[in-house]
Amino acid sequence: HADRLDGIPPTIFTEMSALAMRTGSVNLGQGFPDQDGPASVVERAVRALRDGDNQYAPGSGVLALREAIAAHQHRHYGIELDPGHEVVVTTGATEGIAAALLGLVNPGDEVVVLEPYYDSYLAMIAFAGGVRRPVTLRGPDYRLDVEALRAAVNERTRVMLINTPHNPTGTVLTRAELQSIAEVAIEHDLVVITDEVYEHLTFEDHEHIPLATLPGMAERTLTLSSAGKMFSFTGWKIGWATGPRELTGALLGAKQWLSFSSGSALQPAVAHALDNESGFYESLRVDLQGRRDQLCAGLSALEMEVRVPEGTYFACTDVAAYGWKDAHEFCLALPERAGVVAIPAQAFYDDQDEGRHKVRWAFCKEADVIADGLARLSAAD
Amino acid sequence: HADRLDGIPPTIFTEMSALAMRTGSVNLGQGFPDQDGPASVVERAVRALRDGDNQYAPGSGVLALREAIAAHQHRHYGIELDPGHEVVVTTGATEGIAAALLGLVNPGDEVVVLEPYYDSYLAMIAFAGGVRRPVTLRGPDYRLDVEALRAAVNERTRVMLINTPHNPTGTVLTRAELQSIAEVAIEHDLVVITDEVYEHLTFEDHEHIPLATLPGMAERTLTLSSAGKMFSFTGWKIGWATGPRELTGALLGAKQWLSFSSGSALQPAVAHALDNESGFYESLRVDLQGRRDQLCAGLSALEMEVRVPEGTYFACTDVAAYGWKDAHEFCLALPERAGVVAIPAQAFYDDQDEGRHKVRWAFCKEADVIADGLARLSAAD
Ligand SMILES: CSCCC(=O)C(=O)O
Ligand SMILES: CSCCC(=O)C(=O)O
Repeated sequence: HADRLDGIPPTIFTEMSALAMRTGSVNLGQGFPDQDGPASVVERAVRALRDGDNQYAPGSGVLALREAIAAHQHRHYGIELDPGHEVVVTTGATEGIAAALLGLVNPGDEVVVLEPYYDSYLAMIAFAGGVRRPVTLRGPDYRLDVEALRAAVNERTRVMLINTPHNPTGTVLTRAELQSIAEVAIEHDLVVITDEVYEHLTFEDHEHIPLATLPGMAERTLTLSSAGKMFSFTGWKIGWATGPRELTGALLGAKQWLSFSSGSALQPAVAHALDNESGFYESLRVDLQGRRDQLCAGLSALEMEVRVPEGTYFACTDVAAYGWKDAHEFCLALPERAGVVAIPAQAFYDDQDEGRHKVRWAFCKEADVIADGLARLSAAD
Repeated sequence: HADRLDGIPPTIFTEMSALAMRTGSVNLGQGFPDQDGPASVVERAVRALRDGDNQYAPGSGVLALREAIAAHQHRHYGIELDPGHEVVVTTGATEGIAAALLGLVNPGDEVVVLEPYYDSYLAMIAFAGGVRRPVTLRGPDYRLDVEALRAAVNERTRVMLINTPHNPTGTVLTRAELQSIAEVAIEHDLVVITDEVYEHLTFEDHEHIPLATLPGMAERTLTLSSAGKMFSFTGWKIGWATGPRELTGALLGAKQWLSFSSGSALQPAVAHALDNESGFYESLRVDLQGRRDQLCAGLSALEMEVRVPEGTYFACTDVAAYGWKDAHEFCLALPERAGVVAIPAQAFYDDQDEGRHKVRWAFCKEADVIADGLARLSAAD
């Protein structure tokens, strides 16, 4: 294999979902819901399959979907986009990340990322020849350290790769935090890639604010999102990138060689979802908040220090107090000890002092599944 | 944008399909059929969507599909594969190509390709930092020049990227030609990536022979194929890679970051197709042969020199005799002159002396569409 694969382990999600299957464990690892999205959206896909939307979609995506994405950005955030040139459909946000980094990062360019980082960020920064500069959201509150952010930027920095709501910590960046990011980006003339796939999954009064809405940011921000998390169809792999033509064009310049296009029959269904099913994510957020509370209460009762997330599917715990030195070891032992799978968030840290004991738990599962997981943890205790 | 995009034009297929749409032309450009594949396969996908195959598929693909792919390779070619480690599902062959090159090619490695080459080969060799070494299949007969092949290999050569049946020329490599490739690969200890998406679409007695079946080749060959061309669902983007674990593992090492996985509900449908619908491609090949003859007869009647293809969806012509100096100019003028879109095969050549006048025509279209295209060409003549 090529050298670029060295030092990049297989994605932790594959490892842990395979382990969950093999051991029959309750899978609180990989972030996918166990309830699918709206039936009307499935039926729209069925119609597209039967009506013959079965050949290549255009490289930038089906026009109806690009229009629906633009309308969604306008309706929720007041962002104006030209569906002709400022919207590109991707094979999930994963392809969006890959194509954005290959399209924007040169060898030697530095890329600032929030740590803990999503694992594909690390791999694709490396594939593009870039150098990652992690800025740690430190536990127990996981807020942005503006001094650390400023210190991470230098004359080789080209891109900031931000995610909010933040996987795995559950932090939703505040306007003040986003403002600091914007200031640094503008001061150093950086491009910002922002992964906002959990944009509608925030709790209580934590409000998701797209980075592109901050003054001076629209022209330098490439925003990624996805129907996977918005409409609970993670297997459809329909995502999108929005932003100025120069940035979406760079992404498309790479994306056209990665998959060309995908999901011809699913794209009209996602357009339908964006146009008609906003009620789905409005109620999903309420449901998820309840399941978050259920999981966090259960983990606290087990005396695990848990950070109550402001958004996303995930809660992070520190298992050090629990007597474990290493999250990966903990997570490898857990299926046998308890019949539960969780993700060693440790895999998302350069800073092992900070990350070594961190474990991520998914609560995008039915209440009885979470209850079962908690009961198993409790029994194994 | 990043430097790696410089000098890589947007894919010609996007340009020409957009032109066809804009001008209302008969699209004999991009290779997609205008008749979908078997209804039973669509219905299997419908069932999967409704039954809830809507969350992430495993990174290497749904097991039933990997098993069906292995069974297909065994049934047709006697190739034995372990579906656990020697089969990886990809987002079409396009992702297979991207992931194979990123997973196997280091910066500075040389990659031998057959010229005219498929356009994503060029882009992804460049993204991997590789250097392409084209070996030209020269018109009018487009056969492999074994001396040129030997001359293209040196101590920096790492990979041969072969396609048979060959897009765009329609050449099906003979056993003797494949034997020469195998000899060179073995002598220089090369890995061979072979794109065999048109494996079932060969005409008369031209037989597709997988490179992996040649003595000494199984252990060094990564074979790519796809349901897009096999079952006429190009928009589904379900492809696969087969070969020894070391090579499929390298591909997966890159692929996991490009899309993770895709098409959860389409994968069981393609498994169904492989297991039950071989009759589809057996009759498609017969139909296609008729449409090939229709197109080639029509082009010949217009006094265009046409190479009658042995396989694929495509026929190549030389438009020099027709008075055109440049295929791209010809193809840009054609929609206005005739209301027909074709692909300048010129885009697939380094050697412009050889490629400048070459135009590719797709015949994977209904007979009346081809007749309409030919009538338009004739009227414009
Ligand atoms: C693409 S697999 C990972 C899914 C996910 O978003 C997560 O679990 O963080
Ligand atoms: C992925 S678009 C190109 C389709 C194709 O295989 C061709 O036209 O050669």
